[in-house]
Amino acid sequence: MKKQSFPLAKAYTLLEPGPVTLITTSHNGRHNIMTQSWHTMMEFSPPLVGCLISGNNYSFEALLKHRECVINIPTAELARQVVGIGNCSGGKIDKFTEYGLTPLPASKLAPPLIAECYASLECTVKDSRFVNKYNFFVLEVVEAWADKSVKNPRTLHHCGNGKFMIAGEHIRLASRMK
Amino acid sequence: MKKQSFPLAKAYTLLEPGPVTLITTSHNGRHNIMTQSWHTMMEFSPPLVGCLISGNNYSFEALLKHRECVINIPTAELARQVVGIGNCSGGKIDKFTEYGLTPLPASKLAPPLIAECYASLECTVKDSRFVNKYNFFVLEVVEAWADKSVKNPRTLHHCGNGKFMIAGEHIRLASRMK
Repeated sequence: MKKQSFPLAKAYTLLEPGPVTLITTSHNGRHNIMTQSWHTMMEFSPPLVGCLISGNNYSFEALLKHRECVINIPTAELARQVVGIGNCSGGKIDKFTEYGLTPLPASKLAPPLIAECYASLECTVKDSRFVNKYNFFVLEVVEAWADKSVKNPRTLHHCGNGKFMIAGEHIRLASRMK
Repeated sequence: MKKQSFPLAKAYTLLEPGPVTLITTSHNGRHNIMTQSWHTMMEFSPPLVGCLISGNNYSFEALLKHRECVINIPTAELARQVVGIGNCSGGKIDKFTEYGLTPLPASKLAPPLIAECYASLECTVKDSRFVNKYNFFVLEVVEAWADKSVKNPRTLHHCGNGKFMIAGEHIRLASRMK
């Protein structure tokens, strides 16, 4: 995917529909990836994203320590990788190599963008006060990237236990909602 | 829609794909509805949902005071109502009457289920400590309802400014992810 810089104030349009994401972190000189679906927009501008990362994940320690990650949004052709990445731990393997994904340097952070994902959001941890009780990180999107040729991305939406909905048709309605 | 009781431990499967919701509250003997897309699952069991409700919404005061709401999940045939409800305030009109929706009594709360939605989650406010800073409510789902005849609901997913994605095809992949 050829990603271009994407306006921060529009970052919410990428995450609001609720896609499965692939979150990259870096720790001890190694990149890792986790599959993640529990996130919500919290503010338009600067864009804030609330994100659950369980302490069971190898990514948890990296995020807590280095306070940065990239939220990458895959489309349906990456379904096999999304499930595979969700079913193994970065403590044991290099998931980029294992799943044939390409790390690209981020502009502001150590964790990489995933080249094969149509959009990527570079994020820093803005607030970790809710991590102890809920594993809930408040992230700020500091740079956004998207392949603008992808108009209606066929994102994946997890319905539990390996069932995924693939984004279908798009409609437009007259609305004053942002 | 003929909704049946739905297992609480499976409630996450309804919200995890990221659908637009219609949230009902009750205040001063009146029911209200708001359109809402910024939510995330936070825990499987008991099911916790994090939910942004801006202080600009008429529903905010009702939720903060009475600490209960119903998250209703509409499908594509309700797209016109979803947008209309998102573009007006319950301070001025009765949205059930205005949009031809049918309130049904909830089992545990004052706010009603919306009959025309295929699923409804009765929720209480579990934690309001993040409301001041982020308008972020942590809700606990205390009762869930869904029309089990709806296997692959054509939920709506907001992409900003009146653009919606309608849930498309479903796929199953071998996965150990819950």
